[in-house]
Amino acid sequence: MNRFLLVAITLGIALGVAGQAIAQSSALPSWNDGAAKNSITHFVARVTQQGGPDYVAPGERIATFDNDGTLWAEQPIYVQLAFALDRVRALAPLHPQWEKKQPFKAALEGDLESVMRGGEHAILELLMASHAGMTTEEFESTARDWIATARHPKTGRRYTEMVYQPMLELLAYLRANGFKTFIVSGGGIEFMRPWTEEVYGIPPEQVIGSSIETEFELRDGKPVLVRLAEIHFIDDEAGKPVGIHRHIGRRPIAAFGNSDGDLQMLQWVAAGSGKSLCLYVHHTDAEREWAYDRESSIGRLDEGLDEAKARGWTIVDMKQDWKSIFPSH
Amino acid sequence: MNRFLLVAITLGIALGVAGQAIAQSSALPSWNDGAAKNSITHFVARVTQQGGPDYVAPGERIATFDNDGTLWAEQPIYVQLAFALDRVRALAPLHPQWEKKQPFKAALEGDLESVMRGGEHAILELLMASHAGMTTEEFESTARDWIATARHPKTGRRYTEMVYQPMLELLAYLRANGFKTFIVSGGGIEFMRPWTEEVYGIPPEQVIGSSIETEFELRDGKPVLVRLAEIHFIDDEAGKPVGIHRHIGRRPIAAFGNSDGDLQMLQWVAAGSGKSLCLYVHHTDAEREWAYDRESSIGRLDEGLDEAKARGWTIVDMKQDWKSIFPSH
Repeated sequence: MNRFLLVAITLGIALGVAGQAIAQSSALPSWNDGAAKNSITHFVARVTQQGGPDYVAPGERIATFDNDGTLWAEQPIYVQLAFALDRVRALAPLHPQWEKKQPFKAALEGDLESVMRGGEHAILELLMASHAGMTTEEFESTARDWIATARHPKTGRRYTEMVYQPMLELLAYLRANGFKTFIVSGGGIEFMRPWTEEVYGIPPEQVIGSSIETEFELRDGKPVLVRLAEIHFIDDEAGKPVGIHRHIGRRPIAAFGNSDGDLQMLQWVAAGSGKSLCLYVHHTDAEREWAYDRESSIGRLDEGLDEAKARGWTIVDMKQDWKSIFPSH
Repeated sequence: MNRFLLVAITLGIALGVAGQAIAQSSALPSWNDGAAKNSITHFVARVTQQGGPDYVAPGERIATFDNDGTLWAEQPIYVQLAFALDRVRALAPLHPQWEKKQPFKAALEGDLESVMRGGEHAILELLMASHAGMTTEEFESTARDWIATARHPKTGRRYTEMVYQPMLELLAYLRANGFKTFIVSGGGIEFMRPWTEEVYGIPPEQVIGSSIETEFELRDGKPVLVRLAEIHFIDDEAGKPVGIHRHIGRRPIAAFGNSDGDLQMLQWVAAGSGKSLCLYVHHTDAEREWAYDRESSIGRLDEGLDEAKARGWTIVDMKQDWKSIFPSH
């Protein structure tokens, strides 16, 4: 082994072992100094300080992140809904009856308002029509292809470029300090898994989300998993602690969200026996991103905002606390 | 940092990076030389050989292990059933009606044959009565306490000492070669998680198993997860590939089982695009352990044995291939 590599590796290990050595100011360059950033670095310094009263062993440093609105933008519509609409358009030639049937008719006409007026039921119909009835491998490749090319209607960027730069830094910073990072999203688990490793550094087995049923089948002797038009699990609100328990089997010590759908996850984490970090990303920047909270139909933050204030959880004011929002490239 | 430590760490890294360096004979000391051991070391050498045609990146080196009969003994009854029977006995004073009601009456009288004659339904009743109706934390501590003290009826050993020494070596060997090891068991996920890390080196988030429903609840403002008497998922037979997909989200390249309940998992792994290792532990040693296969009600290996032979999967003959069965201490 060449000597430079050897020194580099040894140094990396030394820093890794010494945890708190990298808990300092060089990390999180896109975060302005202030209460939010301080609460993060303070927390990490405490739980990584060997022999300290708040020390947590690396294996137990579990951090869970909501996705939509926490790691990437969710306006004007959830990315997965944009995917579903595109899929409905792509599949329409196989389903001529959709031209006359709601919510498909509205979806095909790009009439998003009518789709939304159909409520949860309409959205569910679009999701099932576009997400079920194929094998898991077929769906994975469809999702992968779409995310590689689709662009945000307002910014024209790829969706994977509309992730929050400060949160990417936070993910890396936590991992450098021995944390294992998980996504815990209301979004579809199989919609996220094809790209989370590349974009967030989070491998498929650390992604938790909503799911539909799958069924094992031998097709001409070849085993496949078929996606059924039946909901298996909704990983939102009270479902988040359930999903966390089911997949991880231990309580996280840090959780990050942006909406009321994340409140139970934060409550669950705050109820742990040791030190914990509960953080809400508050969308306050109408210029660089979007400003919304209590009245929004997407990513509503109302009850959660009150509870966060009452309990002293960390609230990130995107406008104040973040130097930049999206990666610049 | 002291110099010895530095050298030790550097050496560890060097070995880890060089993968195949530790794929050789010093590993697996409890395995006799022969076809089974060869198939393992050959497979590991191939998938870790950088630049080789079968190379697999470390993150994708997923290995899944059945538990009962594959990693620890499952005779004369599944360990979890022994736990359920002990719990029914412990809870009996709170349920006086059990003295007259089957299958509880038989369980309390230690009449295992009658319990078994009641079939799946009887066993399910015992499981629900002993596994549901408490919080996840209460159940975890009950399972943890039980496994720390309960002893096997025949050997008098703790159940965690009735794990297979050659399989412990195999787990460690695979991890040393960059594999991520998972349990994929028909047994209860929350029955296993409290002790798998200590015994197998497998953390809770890498344990997949059968589960009952849980529900998030605020009790006097304190969030808890309550275990309901309702089955969520049976992680057996066709459920195993489904559970693998749900939890891991990618296809393992190696799978280890001992019964027909593992067949679909092995089929799923064998159907991957690259090189794979499918291995059955065959219980052939009536003296040191138990000998059973096609006719056994526990851990039946019939269809799986035929398919393994037909497809050239690895079959471990416990009597021939293993120098020792259980850890000696």
